[in-house]
Amino acid sequence: MSKGTLLYAQSGGVTAVINATASAVIQAARSRGLRVLAGRNGILGVLREELVDTGRLSTDEVRALSHTPGGAFGSCRVKLKSLEADRAKYERLLDVFRAHDVRWFLYNGGNDSADTALKLSRLAEASGYPLTCIGVPKTVDNDLVLTDCCPGFGSAAKYTAVSVAEAALDVAAMADTSTKVFVYEVMGRHAGWLAAAAGLAGRTAKDAPHIVLFPEVPFDEALFLERVKAIVADVGHCVVVVSEGLRRPDGKFLAESEGSVDAFGHSQLGGVGPLIAATVKDRLGLKVHWTVPDYLQRSARHLASKTDLAHAQAVGKAAVQYALKGMNGVMPIIRRISSQPYRWDIAPAALEEIANREKKMPSNFIRADGYGITPACRRYLQPLIQGEAPTPFDKNGLPEHARPKLRLVKRRLPAWKD
Amino acid sequence: MSKGTLLYAQSGGVTAVINATASAVIQAARSRGLRVLAGRNGILGVLREELVDTGRLSTDEVRALSHTPGGAFGSCRVKLKSLEADRAKYERLLDVFRAHDVRWFLYNGGNDSADTALKLSRLAEASGYPLTCIGVPKTVDNDLVLTDCCPGFGSAAKYTAVSVAEAALDVAAMADTSTKVFVYEVMGRHAGWLAAAAGLAGRTAKDAPHIVLFPEVPFDEALFLERVKAIVADVGHCVVVVSEGLRRPDGKFLAESEGSVDAFGHSQLGGVGPLIAATVKDRLGLKVHWTVPDYLQRSARHLASKTDLAHAQAVGKAAVQYALKGMNGVMPIIRRISSQPYRWDIAPAALEEIANREKKMPSNFIRADGYGITPACRRYLQPLIQGEAPTPFDKNGLPEHARPKLRLVKRRLPAWKD
Repeated sequence: MSKGTLLYAQSGGVTAVINATASAVIQAARSRGLRVLAGRNGILGVLREELVDTGRLSTDEVRALSHTPGGAFGSCRVKLKSLEADRAKYERLLDVFRAHDVRWFLYNGGNDSADTALKLSRLAEASGYPLTCIGVPKTVDNDLVLTDCCPGFGSAAKYTAVSVAEAALDVAAMADTSTKVFVYEVMGRHAGWLAAAAGLAGRTAKDAPHIVLFPEVPFDEALFLERVKAIVADVGHCVVVVSEGLRRPDGKFLAESEGSVDAFGHSQLGGVGPLIAATVKDRLGLKVHWTVPDYLQRSARHLASKTDLAHAQAVGKAAVQYALKGMNGVMPIIRRISSQPYRWDIAPAALEEIANREKKMPSNFIRADGYGITPACRRYLQPLIQGEAPTPFDKNGLPEHARPKLRLVKRRLPAWKD
Repeated sequence: MSKGTLLYAQSGGVTAVINATASAVIQAARSRGLRVLAGRNGILGVLREELVDTGRLSTDEVRALSHTPGGAFGSCRVKLKSLEADRAKYERLLDVFRAHDVRWFLYNGGNDSADTALKLSRLAEASGYPLTCIGVPKTVDNDLVLTDCCPGFGSAAKYTAVSVAEAALDVAAMADTSTKVFVYEVMGRHAGWLAAAAGLAGRTAKDAPHIVLFPEVPFDEALFLERVKAIVADVGHCVVVVSEGLRRPDGKFLAESEGSVDAFGHSQLGGVGPLIAATVKDRLGLKVHWTVPDYLQRSARHLASKTDLAHAQAVGKAAVQYALKGMNGVMPIIRRISSQPYRWDIAPAALEEIANREKKMPSNFIRADGYGITPACRRYLQPLIQGEAPTPFDKNGLPEHARPKLRLVKRRLPAWKD
């Protein structure tokens, strides 16, 4: 006999370890005797009343989620507006909660999701419906406030540092007669956290990456080219890491100025790497290569950080504890107790203080010349990529991923029309 | 007292495991009491008389090479022409060999390097200089003839299959409201071996990759777009793998038609991924993302194939054995004894039969519709990515790479002027 129903949903860009959070949530809730539903494609599944019955997943399947990248139940990019502007949607969400007797809602996402969870908690309270809403942190962008870091970031950071270190050895070996400048584009539209993580790959000025271009530092082409030239003269080659969010002095994205927009009219970023490479080639006449890992950097579960995985599992477990304690409108956050040795714990923080805010890189994390990270930044980042948490591989040499069949619970409401 | 000097050099694009071959060569030669020199930046180092004294490397450093990507002694892209056209260079090589009493020359590369080793063996013979030349296979392109596969390919293949499998889970999770089509660009200018390896990621028609675009199959845009549309309608999203060498029906590279050329007037490939993505976006109006892993796919030692690593070590060891037996002008190749279970051995093959030839994908490896691999192709590829051979990581969460200080032996000849 279930002690009540908990609804879990994934939101926004997925990560290498968001399913580890899902796994922890389901395991913790099961052990307390709760029934766990999961939104199919996040909050959309709640609006559409497409709810996955996680009770149909075997213990092994739930465990295997912890080494499966992507979002096992589907995620979505849907931002709910204010209670007034999107009242029908919020009401629908409450209707679905009521119809399935959902008492606890865990929303696993970034600052938009924290906002949605917060609004829902208020609406439920105002409506007299007993609902506890918990935000569960997740984002490779590492831009949530209050928490020391965000689950998902550490693994993307480790992927970035390792890939830069490996590729740099390739470039160094060939530079005499081949590629002199290698450009590596990282995600991070508004903050240079992942760009900074690349900095962990090198220890000395001669180590790659030789130049990191942060979104926080306006791009000065002439200065940059001068630096590239000097490094090639000194080291023999130059590895440049560039954030997708690099901006011109006028504040415009470099990649945006190419005029590429997506179906919603947003700038299609992710082209700044080849742009920088072309600049180097045309202006300095050096042979260049470039890489844009794109989704690979946030789905490389095989290279996850053990620390990050532990964070992802801990926030999932804590979220269930907080939910059962009725701690409405909070998020379990990661607190750093010490950097060396790295010690941390989990504590609740009010969604109100987190929703719609964005953590920027502290200015003392970027070197005075704007092209690298400071020792303070290294101290902060280093523990987050520590430890390996390899996924098991099957006999064919491929990672074993959970591919559970998702069964939806029976609908109890009329279909949703937006 | 050394029993003679063996010279080892790396050539062409490096791989995740070429240093494992170097490590095996040095260990095997040391155990036979030989002195081992290594060309600094491949054959260039021989021309310049920049020879690394590997005797200065500790046993631990030599062992650590086996888990270090890149080319530890440096490689180069230098193709020697015919004996007549490049006689001065060939003579210089022999002069350097003589000056350092080099009796065995091991050249670790692809079909160009096999050609150079072959020419040198003939010249030495004609000159009465006792030299044994051995080609040692290496190339992520897998395009050497006679050998069943090439060391370096299996690890790049594994990287590709794993990365496609992981990123596909990301795309699947987000497709409802975000990216519908994901384009993954692989290396392989003339043959679709790495594109084919991506096919290992999926088992059924609904699994990624849904479409593989081979250099062997002329690109039919209308047909391709129709297929993408159908797959998105059926599966909800579509993962496309495209080879950098994809060609239009008129035989021109797709990426080449953009008019980008490198410093030497070669086409700068590596832009076909974004090109295909833009085509899908503009013609079908679907949200797209794309990745170009570039050097990451050939330097990801952390994700090496255990089978590939074993091949790389075995050809290194065999090369030393063949050298000492005076088997001039051969290459140790990999022979497949059976696919299931996978069994193989090493045998000598004449460089004459390998030099300057190129192994294409057999036509029965590409599905009749041109968009995927056949069961025969899967049977061939599967063993090559089997097994993991993770690199050790340090306490900071980064791979431990050998970074030996390279000390050159004293020059005995005047400086080389080209």
